[in-house]
Amino acid sequence: MDKPANTLLNIHPIIKKRWSPRAFSAKAVDGRQLKRIFEAARWAPSSYNEQPWRFIVGRKGDATWDKLYECMVEFNQEWAGKAPVLLLAVGNTVSGKGKPNAVYQYDVGQSMAYITFQVETEEMVAHQMGGFSKEKAVALFDIPADHAPIAMMAIGYQDSPDVLKPDFADMERQPRVRKAMDELVFSDQFGKPASL
Amino acid sequence: MDKPANTLLNIHPIIKKRWSPRAFSAKAVDGRQLKRIFEAARWAPSSYNEQPWRFIVGRKGDATWDKLYECMVEFNQEWAGKAPVLLLAVGNTVSGKGKPNAVYQYDVGQSMAYITFQVETEEMVAHQMGGFSKEKAVALFDIPADHAPIAMMAIGYQDSPDVLKPDFADMERQPRVRKAMDELVFSDQFGKPASL
Repeated sequence: MDKPANTLLNIHPIIKKRWSPRAFSAKAVDGRQLKRIFEAARWAPSSYNEQPWRFIVGRKGDATWDKLYECMVEFNQEWAGKAPVLLLAVGNTVSGKGKPNAVYQYDVGQSMAYITFQVETEEMVAHQMGGFSKEKAVALFDIPADHAPIAMMAIGYQDSPDVLKPDFADMERQPRVRKAMDELVFSDQFGKPASL
Repeated sequence: MDKPANTLLNIHPIIKKRWSPRAFSAKAVDGRQLKRIFEAARWAPSSYNEQPWRFIVGRKGDATWDKLYECMVEFNQEWAGKAPVLLLAVGNTVSGKGKPNAVYQYDVGQSMAYITFQVETEEMVAHQMGGFSKEKAVALFDIPADHAPIAMMAIGYQDSPDVLKPDFADMERQPRVRKAMDELVFSDQFGKPASL
């Protein structure tokens, strides 16, 4: 099922087609594809080139996948159990100079966006999740105190909404919505729509 | 000057070619391009579709550009003064349910990454900055207390490094470097390189 951005503007086709389905097929993702996906993340920009992004990746059938699955809230387990790849994005909260990095979350977000871009290039789909136990993740993967789990992502090939439980299938078929440009892009002062 | 990612992996050409130059030409950016750039940001994913991203955009010659320029530290003013477009990314720190949004920075980072993709699609370049006064930005743009300035960006057409002051020109010609994949992508436990 395609669900392109509802826009008349000629944005990049990958940005237009990308969305976050929950219906994954069992088809495996090969190692070369995963390498390209993480290579895309690696070349994202970051403040002072700190590259605060770290990724823990599991492939279905391995112990890492099982532990990542265990971290998720039940709501996400119900649909993400079929995804061939699960990953956890972790941020280095400390800069190379030993000071707190105020923008580590922002930069990890950029690298994850680069992952979504490469995932779409590979004709696959990704769905990010905030619903997981950070405490479990820290314990299960021995994440050090100066690093913080931020978000999880399921990656794989898309399947029909029909493979989902009815509630998820309904969500899958909902239209995609976004705030209006006027609510997001300002000039002069905050809240005043820019005239572009 | 091109400075593609030093990789043998076949990542998306936009991700491969994108970097963050400081040499901008005076050539203006038209409104249709700006609309597409923000439309790309608008369709980024976010936690619970909160869309915490807000943008304040100035075009050279207008009062918003002048105020954004005034927010920058001197180091950035020295090179960004030629950029035809400056923007400030602001995050809504509160979710629609009135609770703190723990991932607003992460999601604003994703939307800014989508902006970099669209900027490259438009054959332009972008350079992000953390070096600016958040206090000045809050004061000059009346940014409300539940919103936080995060990062600035210069957007425009690239020029030769020769237009920069010598120190910046030297930086412009430095090779791009990244941490090795083994330092970033783990399985089993944090810090243990994944074998992909």
